Amino acid sequence: MKIYTKTGDKGQTSLIGGTRVPKYHLRIETYGTVDELNSYIGLIMCQGIETHDQQLLKEIQDRLFTIGASLAADPEKSKMKIPDLLDSDIVLLENEMDKMNETLPPLKHFVLPGGNTVVSYCHVARCVCRRAERLTVQLAENSFVDEHVTIYLNRLSDYLFVLARKLTAYFKAEENVWIPRV
Amino acid sequence: MKIYTKTGDKGQTSLIGGTRVPKYHLRIETYGTVDELNSYIGLIMCQGIETHDQQLLKEIQDRLFTIGASLAADPEKSKMKIPDLLDSDIVLLENEMDKMNETLPPLKHFVLPGGNTVVSYCHVARCVCRRAERLTVQLAENSFVDEHVTIYLNRLSDYLFVLARKLTAYFKAEENVWIPRV
Amino acid sequence: MKIYTKTGDKGQTSLIGGTRVPKYHLRIETYGTVDELNSYIGLIMCQGIETHDQQLLKEIQDRLFTIGASLAADPEKSKMKIPDLLDSDIVLLENEMDKMNETLPPLKHFVLPGGNTVVSYCHVARCVCRRAERLTVQLAENSFVDEHVTIYLNRLSDYLFVLARKLTAYFKAEENVWIPRV
Ligand code: B12
Ligand code: B12
Ligand code: B12
Ligand SMILES: C[C@H]1O[C@@H](n2cnc3c(N)ncnc32)[C@H](O)[C@@H]1O
Ligand SMILES: C[C@H]1O[C@@H](n2cnc3c(N)ncnc32)[C@H](O)[C@@H]1O
Ligand SMILES: C[C@H]1O[C@@H](n2cnc3c(N)ncnc32)[C@H](O)[C@@H]1O
Ligand SMILES: [Mg+2]
Ligand SMILES: [Mg+2]
Ligand SMILES: [Mg+2]
Repeated sequence: MKIYTKTGDKGQTSLIGGTRVPKYHLRIETYGTVDELNSYIGLIMCQGIETHDQQLLKEIQDRLFTIGASLAADPEKSKMKIPDLLDSDIVLLENEMDKMNETLPPLKHFVLPGGNTVVSYCHVARCVCRRAERLTVQLAENSFVDEHVTIYLNRLSDYLFVLARKLTAYFKAEENVWIPRV
Repeated sequence: MKIYTKTGDKGQTSLIGGTRVPKYHLRIETYGTVDELNSYIGLIMCQGIETHDQQLLKEIQDRLFTIGASLAADPEKSKMKIPDLLDSDIVLLENEMDKMNETLPPLKHFVLPGGNTVVSYCHVARCVCRRAERLTVQLAENSFVDEHVTIYLNRLSDYLFVLARKLTAYFKAEENVWIPRV
Repeated sequence: MKIYTKTGDKGQTSLIGGTRVPKYHLRIETYGTVDELNSYIGLIMCQGIETHDQQLLKEIQDRLFTIGASLAADPEKSKMKIPDLLDSDIVLLENEMDKMNETLPPLKHFVLPGGNTVVSYCHVARCVCRRAERLTVQLAENSFVDEHVTIYLNRLSDYLFVLARKLTAYFKAEENVWIPRV
C-alpha cells in the first residue's frame, strides 16, 4: 500500500473515531507537536549515549505514541481501545531524575544551553516538549484531555533538563551559568 | 548594501505588492515556517547521502522558494510575475516515493523516529513540513492560496517519511516500530 | 532541591511578580520560543567555529536570558530589578555584521539554506529567531514589551544570516542561490 493516500489534500483529516476536522484544529496541532518532540528524542538516542539512557528514551518514545493515540481519539466518539498512560510512567521519570541528580552539583543559576551537540539537542527537545505542553493545556481547556498527558509532558521537560546536565558531565563538556548583568 | 534594513523594527513588513502587514500575520507565519522547513532540507542534504537524493532535495528547496513567493504575494495586489508550482512537481515526489518503496519492507506499524542522525533529521523535517501544511490550510480558509501549495506540502511530508525509511536501510540503521502496550 | 516542583501540573505558571497565568498565555509562548532559540545558539557554538564567533554567541545567549527575564516580568506588578537590554547590544550585532560583510561577495539572490551542518543550523536558528520575533510583535500589541526586545530579535535574525554566509566561506562550503524558474 502507498504511504500517500491523498485523502488529506483538501486540508481535512480524521480523528480516531472518524470525525473529520481541519488540519489546523488545535487537537491536530497538539499531536503534531508531540510527533515533532518524538523526532528529537530519536535524535538524542543515536548520539552515542549510554545504553541505559537509550533504553529510557525508547520507553519515552513509546509513551509519546500512547499520548498521540490518546490525543487523536475523538473524546465524543471513539470506542477504540487505546493504550493507557499510567501514574507509573510519570514516576519512572521522577525516579530517573532523582538518580541523575545525586551525582550533579546543585544549581543556583540558569544554565546556558549548549556545551556539546547532544546536550544542545536535549535543550531543543526540552523546548519542543514545553511547546507541546502549552498546546495540551490549551486543548484541555475546551475538550477532554487525560490529565496524565499534561503532567507527563511537564515532567518530561524537567527530565530532559536533568539529562542535559548529566550528559554535560558524562561527555566532560563545560557547564556555563547565566549571571545577570547588573 | 546592508542586509539589515531596519524597516521592520516597528513590527511591520511588506508583502510582494507592497501591502504592509504585521509580522505575526498568518501569511507571514506561514511562509516563515516554509523557510524553517527549507533550512531542515538543507541540513539533510549535507549528511553524506547519495547524489540522487541530494539532487532531489535541491529541487525541493527550489520549490519551497516558489511556494514562498506564492505565499508572499498579496493576492489582491501583486502584478509581479511569480514562478508557478506545477502538477509535475507533485508527481515528481509521488514517483520518487514509488521508486523508494519498491525496495522497502511494507509497514504495518508506526516507526519510532530515529536510528541515526540523518534519519532523525528527516523526521524532524517531516514534522516541520506538517506544521507548515497546517498553517497553509488555515490561511487558505480566509485568503487565496494556490491549492498546489497545500497538496505539495502534504506530499512532501510523506516523501520525507519514505526518505527516512530509505536512509535507514542505506545506512544500515535499525528500524523499530511501535507496538502499543496492551 | 528537586528540579521538578509539580507546581505547574494543573497547567498554570507564575510570571515574575507572582501573577498566575495559563501556560499557553502569549507571554509564556513568547519566552518559551526565545528559550528554543537560545538552545539553537548553543548548538551552533559547539560546532568547531572560531573563538571570536563563539564569544559573540555567548554574549547573545546572555542577552536572550535578559530578554527572557524582561518578557517574564509582569508589566503591571513586577518590582524586581531585571537587567536591561541596551542600545549597545543592538549596535554590537550591527558592527559585527558590517565586519563580516566586508569579506563576503554581495548578494543579488536568495541563498539556498545549507552547505554544511553548522551553516544549516544557523538557518534553522534564524527561522526560530523570526518565529520568536513574530510572537514578540504580537505580544507588544496588547501588552508592554520593551521595544529593544523586538529590534534585537530583528537584528539577530539578520546576524544569523550573515554568520551563515561567513561560516560557508570559512568552512569552504558551497553557496547556492535561488534562480526562480521562468
Ligand atoms: C494518530 C495518528 C498518527 C500519529 C502517530 C500515532 C500515535 N498514536 O501517536 C502521528 C501524528 C505521529 C502520525 C504520523 C504518521 N502517520 Co498517522 N495516523 C494516526 C491516526 C489518526 C490514528 C492512529 C492511531 O494511533 N491509532 C491508535 C493505535 C492504538 O492503533 P493501532 O492498533 O496501533 O493501529 C494503527 C497502527 O498500526 C497504524 N498502522 C497500520 N498500518 C500502518 C501503515 C503505515 C504506513 C503507518 C504509518 C501506520 C500504520 O495505523 C493503525 C490504525 O490507525 C491514523 C488514522 C486513523 N484515523 O486511524 C493515521 C494513519 C495511520 N497515519 C498515516 C500516515 C501516512 C502517517 C505518516 C507517514 C504521515 C507523515 N507523512 O508524517 C506518519 C508516520 C509516523 C511514523 N513515525 O511512523 C496513514 C497510513 C496510511 C497507510 N498507507 O497505511 C493513516 C491511516 C492516515 C491516513 N492517511 O489515512 N499518525
Ligand atoms: C518572500 C521573501 C522572503 C522569503 C524567501 C523568498 C521566497 N520566495 O520564498 C523568506 C521569508 C524565506 C525570506 C528570507 C530572507 N529575506 Co526576504 N524577502 C521576501 C520578499 C517579501 C519577497 C521576495 C520574493 O520572493 N520575490 C519574488 C521573486 C520571484 O522575485 P525575484 O525576482 O527573485 O527577486 C528577489 C530576489 O532576487 C531577492 N534579492 C535580491 N537581492 C537580494 C539581496 C538579499 C540580501 C536577499 C536575501 C535577497 C535578494 O529579492 C528580490 C526582490 O524581492 C522581499 C521584499 C519584497 N516585498 O519584495 C524580502 C527581501 C528580499 N528579504 C530580505 C532579507 C534581508 C531576507 C533575509 C536575509 C532575512 C533574514 N534575516 O532571515 C532572509 C534571507 C533568506 C535566504 N535564504 O537567502 C530583504 C533584502 C534586503 C537587502 N539588503 O537586499 C528584502 C528586500 C526585505 C526588506 N528587508 O526590505 N525572504
Ligand atoms: C523566566 C524563567 C525561565 C526562563 C529563563 C530565565 C530568563 N530570564 O530567560 C526560561 C523559560 C528559559 C526558564 C527555563 C527553565 N526554568 Co525557569 N523560571 C523563570 C522564572 C519565571 C523567572 C526567572 C528569572 O528570570 N528571574 C529574573 C532574574 C534576573 O532573576 P535571578 O536573580 O537570576 O534569579 C533567578 C535565577 O537565579 C534562577 N535560579 C535560582 N535557582 C535556580 C535553580 C534552578 C534549577 C534553575 C533552573 C534556576 C534557578 O531563579 C531565580 C529566581 O527566579 C522563574 C519563576 C519565578 N516566577 O521567579 C522560573 C524558575 C526559576 N524556573 C525553574 C525551572 C525548573 C526551569 C527549567 C529547568 C524548566 C525546564 N524543564 O525547562 C528551565 C531551565 C533552563 C536553563 N537553561 O537553565 C524553576 C526552578 C525550580 C527549582 N528547583 O529551583 C522556577 C523557580 C519555576 C518553578 N518551577 O517554580 N525559566
Ligand atoms: C521556568 C519557567 O518557565 C515557564 N514555563 C512553565 N511551563 C512552560 C511551558 N510549557 N512553556 C514555556 N514556559 C513555561 C514558567 O514561567 C516557569 O516558571
Ligand atoms: C497520520 C495522521 O496525522 C494527522 N495529520 C494529517 N496532516 C497533519 C498535519 N499537517 N499535521 C499534524 N497531523 C496531521 C492525521 O490525523 C493523519 O491521520
Ligand atoms: C524577508 C522577508 O521576510 C518577511 N519577514 C520579516 N520578518 C519576519 C519574521 N519575523 N518571520 C517571518 N517572515 C518575516 C518579510 O516579508 C520580509 O520582507
Ligand atoms: Mg514545567
Ligand atoms: Mg498528510
Ligand atoms: Mg527582519
